[in-house]
Amino acid sequence: MPEKIKPRTLKGFRDYPPATMIPREWIIETARRVYRSYGFCPMDTPSLEHLEILLGNGSEETDKQLYRFEDHGGRSVGLRFDLTVPLARFVAQHIQELGTPYKRYQIANVWRGENTQRGRYREFMQCDFDTIGTTSLSADIEMILVINDLLSALHVGEFTIHVNHRGILNGLLEKLDLSNKANSVLRALDKLEKIGEDRVRKELAETAEATSDQADQLLALTALAGSNEAMLAEAETLTAGNETGELGVAQLREALAAVSAALSPEAQDALPPEAQNRIQFAPSVCRGLDYYTGIVLETTLDELPSIGSVASGGRYDNLADLYTKQQLPGVGASLGLDRLLAALEELGRLEQTSTTAQVFIPYFAADRRNDYLKLATHLREAGIAVEFYPEAKKLGKQLQYANRRGFRIALVIGDDEFDAGECQVKDLTTGNSKTVAYTNHATALIAEIQSILAK
Amino acid sequence: MPEKIKPRTLKGFRDYPPATMIPREWIIETARRVYRSYGFCPMDTPSLEHLEILLGNGSEETDKQLYRFEDHGGRSVGLRFDLTVPLARFVAQHIQELGTPYKRYQIANVWRGENTQRGRYREFMQCDFDTIGTTSLSADIEMILVINDLLSALHVGEFTIHVNHRGILNGLLEKLDLSNKANSVLRALDKLEKIGEDRVRKELAETAEATSDQADQLLALTALAGSNEAMLAEAETLTAGNETGELGVAQLREALAAVSAALSPEAQDALPPEAQNRIQFAPSVCRGLDYYTGIVLETTLDELPSIGSVASGGRYDNLADLYTKQQLPGVGASLGLDRLLAALEELGRLEQTSTTAQVFIPYFAADRRNDYLKLATHLREAGIAVEFYPEAKKLGKQLQYANRRGFRIALVIGDDEFDAGECQVKDLTTGNSKTVAYTNHATALIAEIQSILAK
Repeated sequence: MPEKIKPRTLKGFRDYPPATMIPREWIIETARRVYRSYGFCPMDTPSLEHLEILLGNGSEETDKQLYRFEDHGGRSVGLRFDLTVPLARFVAQHIQELGTPYKRYQIANVWRGENTQRGRYREFMQCDFDTIGTTSLSADIEMILVINDLLSALHVGEFTIHVNHRGILNGLLEKLDLSNKANSVLRALDKLEKIGEDRVRKELAETAEATSDQADQLLALTALAGSNEAMLAEAETLTAGNETGELGVAQLREALAAVSAALSPEAQDALPPEAQNRIQFAPSVCRGLDYYTGIVLETTLDELPSIGSVASGGRYDNLADLYTKQQLPGVGASLGLDRLLAALEELGRLEQTSTTAQVFIPYFAADRRNDYLKLATHLREAGIAVEFYPEAKKLGKQLQYANRRGFRIALVIGDDEFDAGECQVKDLTTGNSKTVAYTNHATALIAEIQSILAK
Repeated sequence: MPEKIKPRTLKGFRDYPPATMIPREWIIETARRVYRSYGFCPMDTPSLEHLEILLGNGSEETDKQLYRFEDHGGRSVGLRFDLTVPLARFVAQHIQELGTPYKRYQIANVWRGENTQRGRYREFMQCDFDTIGTTSLSADIEMILVINDLLSALHVGEFTIHVNHRGILNGLLEKLDLSNKANSVLRALDKLEKIGEDRVRKELAETAEATSDQADQLLALTALAGSNEAMLAEAETLTAGNETGELGVAQLREALAAVSAALSPEAQDALPPEAQNRIQFAPSVCRGLDYYTGIVLETTLDELPSIGSVASGGRYDNLADLYTKQQLPGVGASLGLDRLLAALEELGRLEQTSTTAQVFIPYFAADRRNDYLKLATHLREAGIAVEFYPEAKKLGKQLQYANRRGFRIALVIGDDEFDAGECQVKDLTTGNSKTVAYTNHATALIAEIQSILAK
């Protein structure tokens, strides 16, 4: 006998057994359903691209992490490290046929050879949606609504969408004549929580040559608190006289009002209480330096803010300038699938199950296989997923299997029951059993199962 | 301005724009739903594996096609070329926690650097399902039922599942004392349609040293015709006295009877007429030489048999013998997603649409954005997917967009309609418009939309 090959996965990669994959598929399905409910359409691109496409605009960091090699034809190729670069290449190539506005979603794997500390994996899934080819604020508003609907549908508990407009800080920088120091300012402000106000002031002075008065105003913006309206009014004052800043405040105010209107469609209804503080103006949210230009957002879970943003995005002016002269503005965001999954697990909000079927049929009357199969067909025709145990074994062993797997109901039916036209419906959660008629099209039995599943 | 990078995909790879991706997602969703209705559970494995895992049992052909390279840690790695090798590695590693029977499905991409002629792509998706750890015929029967349910749900028109049992030909070969020539015999018989009986006889004599009588019996088996029962009876006669052959016939007979019973669950009902010839004993179906050991099947579309099998599989004795001493028998099959998609396209059975939403709301009363957003929320809360055009433009332009994209309904509502509490519901298929009340929770409007969508 030849020696066995040790079965193992690569470092930084993982298998998804059913207990992990079932909730993962549920999140993906939910994202698809919500994206589709706004008319976003699925698209996909190859996992492998020409290396020059992927290196086009990458940072040193992503370039280093890129999986790259020569293919059979001697071409330099790489595995995509995000879904944004392939999207840019895709729209540059196809936008004429697609037309605008082009609304897409893409749920697909990306690969990064990163350090595997901190629970990061080298293959992970992204769930992006974007509206391309329009500068209308409607698309920004819709991005916020999609994230609100998506996280509501995912039962993550209460959450906060932190919304900002890049124009506000940019406007203040223009007003303070610090635009050419934007990167240094943003880097310093970003450390506020970590190192405190005094050291940020020091850094602003050192790296951005900011005066004390300039630092005061910058810190005043990031320190805003209170209601959205109050904060917007103060931001308006801070940026007064600067066109970029005023436009940023105006757009953000309009977007927040529209979201509020859309979430409380009845004129007579107020916004539901749980949603009243859900969408917050957050002047410190920036999302990277170069790419985003308008509204930006991040989303945190109120019960677990430390895990970071689970859905982020924003507006950009020009998606595909590496590949086409056509200016393609857009707005989009991404659900952090793996982070969200980890959070739901930590919060105990994931259903523990290793089955996709709710109903289990044990097989213990050995000569009755065809009768069991008929029963299963009846239930599937009624839309009930059912697993039939393949081997005729002792009932007890099969019920152990059913409990371990997490079925909701077992249908106990042997020779006597088949002959009598009845079936024992066992609720595996409560342990209760009930005898129900099993005749004709199994109508009574189906009704009983549906009533248990509806509980 | 720096020079633009030409946007292009790699040879053998392709983008999936919405018109292709929407039906693709529909097939994937349908496969998931059907697999789940039998209790198969999702799982996934990494796209990249240690090279030694992938090379384990590969043929020279797959080895040549493998995408392989050195990763950042100097490890030899490769992109999976099918889902069977990763499954074998996965169960060898995890079967203790998973327990048996282990029922899984996996829908994922695989990569092969093949010749790109004949419309083959170097990245394509496989949709596999398997039951592992049981030798019970129940699992074989279920495989046939799953394929029947799946193709029925996919509206492919009528189809034929060609079922065989490897024991029947193996039994005849044993009886004829030709077991050690099995490969040569199979290769020769496989050419029957292409080169005709005379040349097959010649090849059997040359490569397998078959006598004229032996060739008669082999050709008699592959030439069987008539009802399943008649063919099985003849196969029984041909293999009489040989245990392997008799077991093959008996198992196939039992499986076909069980499938027939399961498909006509009412004792008083006959199998529906369209399904009566759907599942056929096909003594020439073999599915490769080494891997399968019991029941095997292929599936063809009656309207387009030339495209080949769209769903194939069978029973194997030992899935993971390269990685573990534990014997893991199983049975499983795979849906040929891309082939099926090509067939549906050729048959004109794919819905032509580039939208995921059924309802379109044009935006032409410029000051009413929040009112439009409220309307959209009402509909989404009723489960109706709706796209709101982002820019206030002339109605005509927006309806052109709606028609091009393939929406079913447009809701035409301007200042007058908002004030009057009504909405024009335009059926974009018929061109008919109807004025419907839009008040309170949009109840009447939702009912009208649902009645059009139900048509």
